Amino acid sequence: MPEPRWDRLWTDVHLATMTDPSLGIVRNAAIAASDGRIAWVGPAADLPGPPDHLAAEVIHCAGAWLTPGFIDCHTHIVFGGDRTADFRRRLHGESYAEIARAGGGIMSTVRATRAASNEELTAGAAARATELSAWGVTTIEVKSGYGLDLDNEIRMLEVAAGLARHVPADISPTLLAAHTIPAGYTRRRADYVRLVVDEIIPAALKQGHATAIDVFCEDIAFTPDESRAILEAGIEAGLHGRLHADQLTDQGGGALAAAVGARSADHLEYLSEGGVHAMAEAEVYAVLLPGAAYTLGADRRPPVDTLRRAGVTMALATDANPGSSPITNVGMILNLGCILFGLTPEEALAGFTAAAARVLGQERDRGTLEPGLRADLALWRVDDLAELCYRMGASPLESLVKDGLPAT
Amino acid sequence: MPEPRWDRLWTDVHLATMTDPSLGIVRNAAIAASDGRIAWVGPAADLPGPPDHLAAEVIHCAGAWLTPGFIDCHTHIVFGGDRTADFRRRLHGESYAEIARAGGGIMSTVRATRAASNEELTAGAAARATELSAWGVTTIEVKSGYGLDLDNEIRMLEVAAGLARHVPADISPTLLAAHTIPAGYTRRRADYVRLVVDEIIPAALKQGHATAIDVFCEDIAFTPDESRAILEAGIEAGLHGRLHADQLTDQGGGALAAAVGARSADHLEYLSEGGVHAMAEAEVYAVLLPGAAYTLGADRRPPVDTLRRAGVTMALATDANPGSSPITNVGMILNLGCILFGLTPEEALAGFTAAAARVLGQERDRGTLEPGLRADLALWRVDDLAELCYRMGASPLESLVKDGLPAT
Repeated sequence: MPEPRWDRLWTDVHLATMTDPSLGIVRNAAIAASDGRIAWVGPAADLPGPPDHLAAEVIHCAGAWLTPGFIDCHTHIVFGGDRTADFRRRLHGESYAEIARAGGGIMSTVRATRAASNEELTAGAAARATELSAWGVTTIEVKSGYGLDLDNEIRMLEVAAGLARHVPADISPTLLAAHTIPAGYTRRRADYVRLVVDEIIPAALKQGHATAIDVFCEDIAFTPDESRAILEAGIEAGLHGRLHADQLTDQGGGALAAAVGARSADHLEYLSEGGVHAMAEAEVYAVLLPGAAYTLGADRRPPVDTLRRAGVTMALATDANPGSSPITNVGMILNLGCILFGLTPEEALAGFTAAAARVLGQERDRGTLEPGLRADLALWRVDDLAELCYRMGASPLESLVKDGLPAT
Repeated sequence: MPEPRWDRLWTDVHLATMTDPSLGIVRNAAIAASDGRIAWVGPAADLPGPPDHLAAEVIHCAGAWLTPGFIDCHTHIVFGGDRTADFRRRLHGESYAEIARAGGGIMSTVRATRAASNEELTAGAAARATELSAWGVTTIEVKSGYGLDLDNEIRMLEVAAGLARHVPADISPTLLAAHTIPAGYTRRRADYVRLVVDEIIPAALKQGHATAIDVFCEDIAFTPDESRAILEAGIEAGLHGRLHADQLTDQGGGALAAAVGARSADHLEYLSEGGVHAMAEAEVYAVLLPGAAYTLGADRRPPVDTLRRAGVTMALATDANPGSSPITNVGMILNLGCILFGLTPEEALAGFTAAAARVLGQERDRGTLEPGLRADLALWRVDDLAELCYRMGASPLESLVKDGLPAT
């Protein structure tokens, strides 16, 4: 008998290849992997021989659905401390300012992150990454942004990159030193922008983990001019550009992302029509984060209809963070994307796969089921993939495959 | 050595006894069970001897938090078929009427329920009950209401009662034959009301499973007069009264529940101030169901502030059902109760324990941690019980105890 041509073959499976807007469905299909990559995809009837002759291992999937491993393209899962007390205070009627005065708010997370050891940060983040993994996630973007000084921002990127040793996922670290103006810089903001541009970005490049630069452009964070200076410095140095844009007010964030050549603008509750068209023109992707809109009780929704008509690629992500989106349940985010933002189930699922891969600049490597791409696969115990968006119960993940190998 | 006085003793634990509005917290506590009942509760320092002498088995809980087993006091988890296709149609812009014409809506669930065998209904409901169990639920109210004829309503109650053989939970079946006017009765509604009163209620009583009667009082379901006739017949016969009240319009449902002596009025988005005071006066409990308000995109919230000021006991429940609340994730409902309805974490947790027990008329048997009550216990891996409301990830349930015995 000849050597089998593939390492592993999954049969009796329905595929959502995510290669078209209707999920790229192939029923009664098979998919093969070799050397960690997808080697063959198609209807089982088109297999070039009996499964047992074709692959060293054949997995019969009993009619399960198979998607690309999910990609969570916007998270803040590395942080110290806990914000449960803030949550309680808020529900007992305290204002944001009162909570901050009582030692809460984002600066409490910065203090706790700085005080935590790498091991402590890793333990917390790995637990969150494991929860994402239970929802089929095999690629996680992880932002810094609770260090807010040279050493701690670099340390956060180190911890983020190291998470790949704890979960079956690839990590895509993003430098978000410009998350908020740190204590001590409120009267000399330009000094902090210079610190980011002149020291933190170069140090992150030297370290080599970060693949993207991100800024929170908002009236409570960085101005459009400050944001532009930081984004341009990062993009110039070869990082992908990302922007927390137009979340709480219209800062012209979408247009700014377009002007500097960023890959994505994220949040976008206050994105203007002009912003949508600037993004469409410049091929900036929209990252929708309904967990934050829901948790903060946002009074606006991103302009999904306008984005859709303009042909802007829409990704969806957890925004997992302790303050405004303490959510690692992807099913909940898919559901919120549909119920709160009006995405179709197909758009929501593309938002965690093909669209998210584009946001990370990895669309030639993952996010769809095509020969040559990474064999990151999620198998689901459902009759219809829209169930992933519809039901908000336990994860219907059957099993997970990372780089062609069973990971669960 | 003398016989140990208790079967089982949990130590090194913090308790939320739920006996006061601040959760009835006892830190560094112990709790004992004998013969399925709570035998002792208090600070560990007050134990009348060394733990190993006091109980046949001692469980050291490493500082975990322990609450009463949760009580989900409003569910519709027995049903046939699936409504994922409805969900997809809705998100693709189809109206409720279009979806119904395409074979969807509640009548599709009625058809599928009637067509399903008892085994099929049991398998689906047991899977949902198991998801609730993973969130610490040890008591589940389960409504009929997708049968809508004598045989199928009785069959739904039979399936509901039988679920206790599949999950470590007690089941509290409720007759909801008056869920919607079935096909064939739209022009002779009075005949259906008579069928419920004269035949279905007596048959349910003879069967012996149902402990409550419920009606959906709404302009798309039963009028206040029809609702009153059915409720009065059920309450007269010894069942607890429940009412789906004022969900989509103000039907005076809260006042009706008070007038007939019902135990609860449920939903209440359109409850009037007069309704609140009638409920307070008559000691009718409010059951809040934020899963449905969220899923339906409700434009109103129940008057939580007014209910709170009037001293109305507020329970919280999943309303798990295929149409308007496909949710078995209790953490999500606790979070929605806080974020969407403005409950405090303490109110939300009481809503799934002490308050829910009252709704089911079981407050002398469960819902708090007190000697003599049923030893249904949930242990949680959290530092602060508000985390159950704050985080929407995986369930932090450590273990479950039903009737004094480990159930996980």
